[in-house]
Amino acid sequence: MAYRLKQLAERVGARLEGDPDLRINSVSTLRNAGPGNISFLSNPAYKPQLSDTRASAVILSEDMLENCPVAALVTEDPYLVYAKTVKLLAPRSEPPPPGIHASAVVDPDAKIHDSASVGPHCVIEAGVQIAERTVLGPGCIIARDSRIDADTQLVARVTVCHGTRIGKRCLVHPGAVIGSDGFGLANDHGVWLKIEQVGRVVIGDDVEIGANTTIDRGALDNTVVEDGVKLDNQVQVAHNVRIGQHTAIAGCVGIAGSTKIGRQCLIGGAVGLAGHLEIVDNVTLTGYSRVNSSVKRPGSYTSGTPLQPTKKWQKNSARFRRLDEMARRLAALEKKIKA
Amino acid sequence: MAYRLKQLAERVGARLEGDPDLRINSVSTLRNAGPGNISFLSNPAYKPQLSDTRASAVILSEDMLENCPVAALVTEDPYLVYAKTVKLLAPRSEPPPPGIHASAVVDPDAKIHDSASVGPHCVIEAGVQIAERTVLGPGCIIARDSRIDADTQLVARVTVCHGTRIGKRCLVHPGAVIGSDGFGLANDHGVWLKIEQVGRVVIGDDVEIGANTTIDRGALDNTVVEDGVKLDNQVQVAHNVRIGQHTAIAGCVGIAGSTKIGRQCLIGGAVGLAGHLEIVDNVTLTGYSRVNSSVKRPGSYTSGTPLQPTKKWQKNSARFRRLDEMARRLAALEKKIKA
Amino acid sequence: MAYRLKQLAERVGARLEGDPDLRINSVSTLRNAGPGNISFLSNPAYKPQLSDTRASAVILSEDMLENCPVAALVTEDPYLVYAKTVKLLAPRSEPPPPGIHASAVVDPDAKIHDSASVGPHCVIEAGVQIAERTVLGPGCIIARDSRIDADTQLVARVTVCHGTRIGKRCLVHPGAVIGSDGFGLANDHGVWLKIEQVGRVVIGDDVEIGANTTIDRGALDNTVVEDGVKLDNQVQVAHNVRIGQHTAIAGCVGIAGSTKIGRQCLIGGAVGLAGHLEIVDNVTLTGYSRVNSSVKRPGSYTSGTPLQPTKKWQKNSARFRRLDEMARRLAALEKKIKA
Repeated sequence: MAYRLKQLAERVGARLEGDPDLRINSVSTLRNAGPGNISFLSNPAYKPQLSDTRASAVILSEDMLENCPVAALVTEDPYLVYAKTVKLLAPRSEPPPPGIHASAVVDPDAKIHDSASVGPHCVIEAGVQIAERTVLGPGCIIARDSRIDADTQLVARVTVCHGTRIGKRCLVHPGAVIGSDGFGLANDHGVWLKIEQVGRVVIGDDVEIGANTTIDRGALDNTVVEDGVKLDNQVQVAHNVRIGQHTAIAGCVGIAGSTKIGRQCLIGGAVGLAGHLEIVDNVTLTGYSRVNSSVKRPGSYTSGTPLQPTKKWQKNSARFRRLDEMARRLAALEKKIKA
Repeated sequence: MAYRLKQLAERVGARLEGDPDLRINSVSTLRNAGPGNISFLSNPAYKPQLSDTRASAVILSEDMLENCPVAALVTEDPYLVYAKTVKLLAPRSEPPPPGIHASAVVDPDAKIHDSASVGPHCVIEAGVQIAERTVLGPGCIIARDSRIDADTQLVARVTVCHGTRIGKRCLVHPGAVIGSDGFGLANDHGVWLKIEQVGRVVIGDDVEIGANTTIDRGALDNTVVEDGVKLDNQVQVAHNVRIGQHTAIAGCVGIAGSTKIGRQCLIGGAVGLAGHLEIVDNVTLTGYSRVNSSVKRPGSYTSGTPLQPTKKWQKNSARFRRLDEMARRLAALEKKIKA
Repeated sequence: MAYRLKQLAERVGARLEGDPDLRINSVSTLRNAGPGNISFLSNPAYKPQLSDTRASAVILSEDMLENCPVAALVTEDPYLVYAKTVKLLAPRSEPPPPGIHASAVVDPDAKIHDSASVGPHCVIEAGVQIAERTVLGPGCIIARDSRIDADTQLVARVTVCHGTRIGKRCLVHPGAVIGSDGFGLANDHGVWLKIEQVGRVVIGDDVEIGANTTIDRGALDNTVVEDGVKLDNQVQVAHNVRIGQHTAIAGCVGIAGSTKIGRQCLIGGAVGLAGHLEIVDNVTLTGYSRVNSSVKRPGSYTSGTPLQPTKKWQKNSARFRRLDEMARRLAALEKKIKA
């Protein structure tokens, strides 16, 4: 797709500075752009690359305009306008044609809409319902009684266990497992007795689920992922977790059983949340934090210690082992001085 | 399945309080239960929900009985009795019928018991042995010379690499990979030389392995998962690890090479264990702990720092960088005061 | 394969001590070795096992020789010589014969070299190129326009998304996903707008990728894994990451977007790296470290706190919450004493 810069500005809602007839055919980074490319500047770390860019135009904020050597689309939110621009210039590829590939194994008791596409080597069990325009890429397994709503895409090799519900316009990446058994065990004199997991997974609309992410079915009630939630790769969502609308969770996060996460939260990579917690709306948990207690007020939270040269760290961490003693000694000294 | 409350009490070994003829047909949570449901109270956090429950009966301990507005099954271990109750009221679904699906690719030199079930798109290589009543769900790959013993179920899309042994009554969830190469490398003047991994994976009886969990084959000796071990999702077990009987390991745990974990251990989510360690029996490692040294005595162990508002954390973690210096200054001050 | 000890010494480049005609047919650990086995001693922790070994010969360094009760191959780098020895005595199994399995689904517009092997239930889309002697094990999916170069092996069930490039002699383990969408989102008044990911993944030569590891495609530019990089299981590589030549990354590591890692780095298990960082060449990050800032000098770095009994840890970590206050109190005390 190609656009005149003026057309682009109108479509993405930004102010045009420069030649309105410039022809733009793709998006690129400041460093690698060339003629016909539009670039963007959102993260200030990349500001030094602006003056040397060979892009035809750059999406940026008002305060960056004076340093911009080429045409510009000016906006308060360059990252959002960039997102809209990519969607125009590099739309997702056409979905595969409707129909069921000859190598797919589909139970006669499954209902698959005529406009849906079922790829090679998919397996669809009895009682499954696949709605209009839904695309199952190669190698997907949809176990009995699951329902997948309209315009959802399972890219490839997604496993959906029995009774799962997936909403509209979802996007699920390869290797994801939705509806596997929760980790429920009762200890019977030293031997683990499995607790059958009879809940299911319910995924809302417009949810994205990353590669090799796992979402367990509920023990009794359901595990729920609300509308607009975005999960990155290798996230683990345990049984009976609930994730509120429009919360985004980065890669490698683990959420233990029955924890409730509010709406519009941002959870950084590799955060670990213990079970049975409540995180309110609008909470940010920075990457690699250990969350062992509920968070009752919006804001940003962190745990951990900073990276140091290993030798320095060894000395400091040895002191951490006796930090309580150190605090007592300090208090004793204060008392002594005061007396 | 439906039971009279009296029958249930007998079958699960609990004392009945209330109408013995109450008809119970399913299990539910205190909050969502209705007539015909039995619920349970084990985690004290849910005690406030007891007085309002609309369950027909509740499984609970003696000391909760006075607050229970409905019939009860009284026991010292409500969670265990709940586990037994779910098994009765919501048994696992019937296994698929025996036989090999037409779309499965089975080497003529594989031995598959007549009572076993091999699902669609499975691949079974030469020398494989599948015992009686074992169920391979859709998309499983069993590489050459592996053996899977009786009554084991691979739910779907499990990959078992060559020469692996899996015991009786195991349950393996989708996406698990058992027997992949260990991460063995020797550095040859800056270039990594792969160390061929010639050991295998040996899994005992009654082992559960979670979705997308990976267990590497041994470098020379075997990687061993003993009887009754339970592994949650996205656990990584490196080469030559040994996990002792009835140890339970929660999601996202990583265990580096050659580490030995004892029996009856409890390892919380996202714990990381370095290589070549020994953890004795009956050790609890709380969630998100970093384990860098062997644990020689039973008990509960932890590492990490607590979650804080990011701004407070920044100040505290900056001090951590100089904790050793701080300890020296404190000692100097003590000396001065003493003098 | 069997060798005389003398032959072995020559082939692997070590000095022979003992009977040159000893017949060696396999490799084993010091503890489990028997006649005909060669073992090795590299990690000093295993030194006590040397005197009791029943191996026919042991690979070790000069300073261990006097404690060796049997023949020896003496070298400065026993681990490297062991790697070479395993390669000789236990070579990787023969690749499957060339050709495309009847159950594979191959687009007529894919180009597959006659000497390549495509296993059962593989799916190969249009525009794919598979070079000579490359082996795709069972269940691999190669999406449109991807290219896999010569002598690469995808063990089983690997998913390669569209447009990916994989070099020569790579080895990719089951469940790996290469080229999934990066986690790119722009916030549009509380709702996430997906940023289409138009870059790709480019993997160099001699790269190993572990089981269930995920590598996301670039947002605009490519995600790049350079020659000789080794990735263990369950590693997450986000969009636009670059990993330098011969860097080795252990299991469960997460690398956030646009972070650049230098050459010859060693990254321990479960390390988490934030986005947009630069790690120079020859950096070691010890296991379970949280990396939140760039590393500009070679060396070893660490974060975290040591494992302690939970009760002690509770006291110490409570003090950590007020470490800044404690530091201020100490400074005040110093000032008072000085005055």
